[in-house]
Amino acid sequence: MTAFDHPEFDGHEQVLFCHDGAAGLRAIVAVHDTTLGPAVGGCRMHPYATTAEALADVLRLSRGMTFKNAVAGLPLGGGKAVIVGDPAAPGKDVLLRAFGRHVQALGGRYWTSIDVGVHPHDADVIAEECAYVIGRAAQYPGGENPSHMTSLGGLAGIRAAVAHTMLRDDLRGVRVAVQGLGNTGRELCRLLHDEGADLVVADIDDQAVRDVVHSFGAGAVPPDLIHEQDVDVFAPCALGGVLNDDTIPQLKARIVCGLANNQLRHPHHGAVLREAGITYVPDYVVNAGGMIGVAALVNGSPDRPAERRRVLALHNTVLTVLRRADTENRPTSEIADAMARERIAHSRSTW
Amino acid sequence: MTAFDHPEFDGHEQVLFCHDGAAGLRAIVAVHDTTLGPAVGGCRMHPYATTAEALADVLRLSRGMTFKNAVAGLPLGGGKAVIVGDPAAPGKDVLLRAFGRHVQALGGRYWTSIDVGVHPHDADVIAEECAYVIGRAAQYPGGENPSHMTSLGGLAGIRAAVAHTMLRDDLRGVRVAVQGLGNTGRELCRLLHDEGADLVVADIDDQAVRDVVHSFGAGAVPPDLIHEQDVDVFAPCALGGVLNDDTIPQLKARIVCGLANNQLRHPHHGAVLREAGITYVPDYVVNAGGMIGVAALVNGSPDRPAERRRVLALHNTVLTVLRRADTENRPTSEIADAMARERIAHSRSTW
Repeated sequence: MTAFDHPEFDGHEQVLFCHDGAAGLRAIVAVHDTTLGPAVGGCRMHPYATTAEALADVLRLSRGMTFKNAVAGLPLGGGKAVIVGDPAAPGKDVLLRAFGRHVQALGGRYWTSIDVGVHPHDADVIAEECAYVIGRAAQYPGGENPSHMTSLGGLAGIRAAVAHTMLRDDLRGVRVAVQGLGNTGRELCRLLHDEGADLVVADIDDQAVRDVVHSFGAGAVPPDLIHEQDVDVFAPCALGGVLNDDTIPQLKARIVCGLANNQLRHPHHGAVLREAGITYVPDYVVNAGGMIGVAALVNGSPDRPAERRRVLALHNTVLTVLRRADTENRPTSEIADAMARERIAHSRSTW
Repeated sequence: MTAFDHPEFDGHEQVLFCHDGAAGLRAIVAVHDTTLGPAVGGCRMHPYATTAEALADVLRLSRGMTFKNAVAGLPLGGGKAVIVGDPAAPGKDVLLRAFGRHVQALGGRYWTSIDVGVHPHDADVIAEECAYVIGRAAQYPGGENPSHMTSLGGLAGIRAAVAHTMLRDDLRGVRVAVQGLGNTGRELCRLLHDEGADLVVADIDDQAVRDVVHSFGAGAVPPDLIHEQDVDVFAPCALGGVLNDDTIPQLKARIVCGLANNQLRHPHHGAVLREAGITYVPDYVVNAGGMIGVAALVNGSPDRPAERRRVLALHNTVLTVLRRADTENRPTSEIADAMARERIAHSRSTW
């Protein structure tokens, strides 16, 4: 079976296997769709047990970037890259530079960025060999972090979902359960706290939990109980697949709106959530803030205030998804996919 | 299994799966090695039963181009492309243009050209979308054909092998059996006839046989008997795999020197030929004339007299291979591979 026959192939424009014998690099670049612009998506580095696992991962993630960028209204297509390797092992910089040369050779058809195992300072290393890399530490002076924009989008999405579902214009006293306190989860807690929300949190890292409890007056629960808290909003900000046959019946929240990728274990769980009367904000719609934040870098220099305005405008996109789901009586996850496809088809027809 | 794990992967720098949904294109570009320069190799179009077959074919052919270009002394790396499809079916131009866009996007890292199913006028179609294509009909005015340079290299190779093995400086009265009378085989017959060689030929196309019998006074035999003729030189110019356990014991020629690709069914048949006392001129050494002819087009405009001189200089390359095989008592096929690897390794070490 080749890439063409892979169950996740889904009409990818390009799937590129990149090798550098001297560096020991094995990487895959997937370019799903460039109808709306150059394909943009991060590079993940992971010690995949097999290259078949790496291929499945990059194809799935690349397609997701097409949908994310399209729904966010960005002039960008969807792509993704994976490097087969342990990001904690020695020699990472050699692999990143070799990867950078391969991305450079694509001439801007694919722009890479950060992802799991590839951080802003790694993007700086890639940039030694490659002009087509965003999310670099050098682009975020003063300790800024690209994930802050993702969190800001999370706030905008929760506001929109609360307005739609609870008919409230503010978050004062709204109860939010945040699952996962990494960069985006912690920053989301800060933003929600500033808006007066009440927080309950969980993470496998006790130190991270103590910090958020101390800083933002959050309550803490064990990780395996966070999804079933009696709250208004459940915000998954950690693992994928957290919305499934086991967890959905245990949810007490009326709203699910978080920043983790691939929250639905299977696509049909979008319909299961709708049948349960739960307002689900599709993950890739609400977590597009990071991409919006970096998108300006593809065609120009950063303009932070403009980026913040654009991220906060995710509020409108989320409302559109939720309203159309009600009008058409379809799961929000299907509506988001349909909106992405429509934007791409419309763009194609106007060329 | 992904491309990385394919038995023919052999350290390829890039393997690119190209897709165009609107055009219905499925193509694979393989870039084996660019140490010596941009990867150059033709594009084959064939109705492969599976894309796995297409992948195996392109990987094998791409690696072969690295060796061919290296031994020929060209400043070119090795690559190849395959388009999955029937070259005789309608809509070929649409596929060729979509393929051209993919090659264009590689920015010159890979240059494409003609091969089975893709002819000079097809290369003109590819060139509508792509600057990195050679072997175009437009580059061969007045009915010239790129395969003529291949045939000229065949003449140079046969002269060298005759000089080495038969200690003769001319071909007058030398008996040559030519298997296959396509573009290169027929032109080789013309060149050999002009030098005074005696020809016996075979082809499944009776008309082609009658033409060569009439034009060059050749004898004709059935295709299944051509390899066992009592001649000085057997020149395979048709199928691959023609030198195998069945045919080698039947050879009466002291020299095998022809223009077909992949004449050895398995690599070890190079050693079998040596043990049989037969001088085998490795196929990719002697059939490099076509590449030499087009190589000038990668970096400039054609200069036919200089190209002809360079093709005729294959005489020296062939002599080097044959002499070194005797000195080291190794099969000529291994010597050619070693010379290619040495040239690449030396080039790498000087950067």
